[in-house]
Amino acid sequence: MRLRMRTSLTGTSKFSRRVRKETVKYRMTANAPPGDMLDYYDVSGCFILKPASYFIWEEIQDWFNKKIKKMGVKNCSFPLFVTEDVLQREKDHIEGFAAEVAWVTHAGSTPLEKKIAIRPTSETVMYPYYSKWIRSHRDLPLRLNQWNSVVRWEFKNPQPFLRTREFLWQEGHTAHLTEDAARKEVLQILDWYADIYSELLAVPVVKGQKTEKEKFAGGLYTTTVEGYIPATGRGIQGGTSHGLGQNFSKMFNITVEDPSAKAGEQKEALHVWQNSWGLSTRTLGVMVMIHSDNKGLVLPPRVAETQVVIVPVGITAKSTEEDREKLYAEIDGLVTVLEAAGVRVQSDKREGYSPGWKFNQWELRGVPLRLEFGPGESAGHFVTTARRDIPGKDGKSTLPIADLVSGTTALLETIHTDMYNRADAEFKAHRPQITNWDDFTPALNAKNLCLVPFCLQMDCEESIKNQSARKAEEESGEVTDAKAPSMGGKSLCIPFDQPEGIEPGVTKCINPSCSNFAEKWCMFGRSY
Amino acid sequence: MRLRMRTSLTGTSKFSRRVRKETVKYRMTANAPPGDMLDYYDVSGCFILKPASYFIWEEIQDWFNKKIKKMGVKNCSFPLFVTEDVLQREKDHIEGFAAEVAWVTHAGSTPLEKKIAIRPTSETVMYPYYSKWIRSHRDLPLRLNQWNSVVRWEFKNPQPFLRTREFLWQEGHTAHLTEDAARKEVLQILDWYADIYSELLAVPVVKGQKTEKEKFAGGLYTTTVEGYIPATGRGIQGGTSHGLGQNFSKMFNITVEDPSAKAGEQKEALHVWQNSWGLSTRTLGVMVMIHSDNKGLVLPPRVAETQVVIVPVGITAKSTEEDREKLYAEIDGLVTVLEAAGVRVQSDKREGYSPGWKFNQWELRGVPLRLEFGPGESAGHFVTTARRDIPGKDGKSTLPIADLVSGTTALLETIHTDMYNRADAEFKAHRPQITNWDDFTPALNAKNLCLVPFCLQMDCEESIKNQSARKAEEESGEVTDAKAPSMGGKSLCIPFDQPEGIEPGVTKCINPSCSNFAEKWCMFGRSY
Repeated sequence: MRLRMRTSLTGTSKFSRRVRKETVKYRMTANAPPGDMLDYYDVSGCFILKPASYFIWEEIQDWFNKKIKKMGVKNCSFPLFVTEDVLQREKDHIEGFAAEVAWVTHAGSTPLEKKIAIRPTSETVMYPYYSKWIRSHRDLPLRLNQWNSVVRWEFKNPQPFLRTREFLWQEGHTAHLTEDAARKEVLQILDWYADIYSELLAVPVVKGQKTEKEKFAGGLYTTTVEGYIPATGRGIQGGTSHGLGQNFSKMFNITVEDPSAKAGEQKEALHVWQNSWGLSTRTLGVMVMIHSDNKGLVLPPRVAETQVVIVPVGITAKSTEEDREKLYAEIDGLVTVLEAAGVRVQSDKREGYSPGWKFNQWELRGVPLRLEFGPGESAGHFVTTARRDIPGKDGKSTLPIADLVSGTTALLETIHTDMYNRADAEFKAHRPQITNWDDFTPALNAKNLCLVPFCLQMDCEESIKNQSARKAEEESGEVTDAKAPSMGGKSLCIPFDQPEGIEPGVTKCINPSCSNFAEKWCMFGRSY
Repeated sequence: MRLRMRTSLTGTSKFSRRVRKETVKYRMTANAPPGDMLDYYDVSGCFILKPASYFIWEEIQDWFNKKIKKMGVKNCSFPLFVTEDVLQREKDHIEGFAAEVAWVTHAGSTPLEKKIAIRPTSETVMYPYYSKWIRSHRDLPLRLNQWNSVVRWEFKNPQPFLRTREFLWQEGHTAHLTEDAARKEVLQILDWYADIYSELLAVPVVKGQKTEKEKFAGGLYTTTVEGYIPATGRGIQGGTSHGLGQNFSKMFNITVEDPSAKAGEQKEALHVWQNSWGLSTRTLGVMVMIHSDNKGLVLPPRVAETQVVIVPVGITAKSTEEDREKLYAEIDGLVTVLEAAGVRVQSDKREGYSPGWKFNQWELRGVPLRLEFGPGESAGHFVTTARRDIPGKDGKSTLPIADLVSGTTALLETIHTDMYNRADAEFKAHRPQITNWDDFTPALNAKNLCLVPFCLQMDCEESIKNQSARKAEEESGEVTDAKAPSMGGKSLCIPFDQPEGIEPGVTKCINPSCSNFAEKWCMFGRSY
């Protein structure tokens, strides 16, 4: 555990307390997540997902598989490798990935005739086969998904979960007859990505579309869910659902005959409309960074491997062996009842550790709910409850044994809702509308993402980023390390949910050196 | 579909019919499995698992995950990459894999400082962390599993599912305090591997232990399930569960203090006892090769994505639109009823195809049970059933609508049992006990695996393989291509279930040039 515990609070004002707390939080979670979730690996940029985090990934898999299978998506498995020829078939696409592709050149001591790439994503791996398999409009929609790992050998500083050279994800690749059918799916998938964050991980996200500058290389448009990390004040891309248009289908010659052609007419070849969409184990990083405090992790109850831990209390040196056995038997009974109701529960009857030591350990691991059970509870027919998300006395209460199941499940749901609502309030409080350029960099410095009126032009976006980075560097007196996250504000998304206030042909773009009118409110911020 | 349909039977004797049938079967299934299951890929030795086969892999995953999680195994994810240093820590182990390791040397156009291997298996990837994580006997057993892909760049001819340069598998890696606890787990896992074959895939296997020559490189002993492919008369390794002993724990320094040491005594450091066990997508290849006939695939019902297809029949040119609609509505009702009972069912109401054409297509795809439903069935309140595993009239029957659910589920179970029993009878009929060396190669030529009295010595095993290969080549007049499967008989396993007949110190080893006594009945055969 690389966890530095805060032993005292020297700051007194509310502000300094907050800053201090957030610093501790960031240090713990982003650079060194609790040891239960992840371990560092001796290949730089690669990490081990330990069971506590992989369990959550499996919960996400289960949930998402159910949704997409019901829609008609089928899972499959394409190879890890891709030839150089195929990888380079789509020019914009390969430009987006070329610098990060890992190349296999030898097998044993034998040089390969041609070097082979490890997929950075599977568009070019899969689409030659889509061209082969799709012969008629009856083969549409073709909807395939795979759960795999991809490799992007980034040279920026790696960050656990967030920027890793190999990462786990799912990638869906679909082909449709019409643009409309394709677009509907893009949005449906995005809704499910948002649900994974909000319903499973208790994390609020903003849905929107990427600007031209930030869209997927080779695609037509990219929709995204964007999260917010309070500790750093940075935005984070949570998952993307891309409309690829007909770009790849033209490159890979994926066509069907027009089914609406009348008998006897020449049937035109139509290029299919494609989508791709992906969600990665970055989800886990976002969850960890948002739901942690200075005691460690706080796991959202719906996905926590252990939702409830029962810790025996009140066993003292004076207690007899019989007292202990009786108490433990009662605890076993509580476990049985909760398990039967589908609660993921365990008891901690380890000898040689004090209740306080156990409390700390389970808090560190983020178990959402602790039940304490001792002679007092036994005599009074209740359990003492302690919520992980509200440390200390405020999070403690009692629950009659008669209501054990209903009370526990309701409390887990309350914890989920409260965790979501707190994170949502924090995100909303850090998402101001900024219309004056002079307020932009200060707002970033105050850990905000900013909704700004924006012309959507690529060069203007570059200019906003560079100007704000320069301003932040001037103020801080530091020059950004090339490997560090940028201090400039970049566009995160054009939120679907647009505030009022932009008058076409009247409202100016926020960039003072831009002469265009604003098209949309766009969310800018520092990002991962 | 690279399927050559047999249009006539020119041979007349029973023997020539059998040979002919098996030739067709082998051509179709081993070299070119039906196109629904798999596709060839443009990197040699890599294949695409299409949804029909990946679905079965997911069924296997679900089943096995439930078993191992209940035992306390947790899933996790270790990186794809391994450094050269770590890979070479265990000498015997790396010798077993060195020639097949794929090496990454570049990222983009940048040469890596040190080349990095893609894991051929994860012992050396994982065990440095076991050494770090296991601090006390309280951390034992440590039981981790991962579902991933590994790469072994074999230069032998690739075969779909069976010998592929990348393959999907699960690899379990566990550490125990005692040899006994480790051994119990090895055998429990092996039982589950056997169950996956018999209970899910309707494939019989023989459980046993590998000889010293064939055991896992670096391990203490290897247990295995071995299958049999009638078409080629070859044995096939189906999954292996290895007792690694303390070999790796000594190399990687994985120790705990002796918990049985008395207070005050010096606590000895004990090296943990380790296991590793793996089952791959080869399972699917074994299933395909065993359960196919000259009409295509025959899928075992418990894992088939579509268990039942309902095909409308008896709609003719004279039928009215109303007739058709009424019939289709009734079919929708049958689908609803079966779906509600958990049967994976679909109807085939496509226009423009005859019932016969549809029958053929679903037979090719291997759907275990076809229900036919037309005006006659409707009037008589029954469905016509057609079993995929018994082609033609013998496999047809009827089922009253009143018994639709119970009759269908019972029939699916019967199909499973019959498929298993037929394969089991075939395996048993081709597993003779051979005690005379002169009968050995002829028995191999007659597509048998042979149980022979064997001394278990490594050099004798090599000699048996070489002698039988030479003899087979002399007889056939062909010299085996180095890339082709060997014509020699190699040891497949020492079956746990040993026939009687070996007298210690009396029964001779079958090899005429060996002077040792036989220790065990060992199953020899040609293999994949």
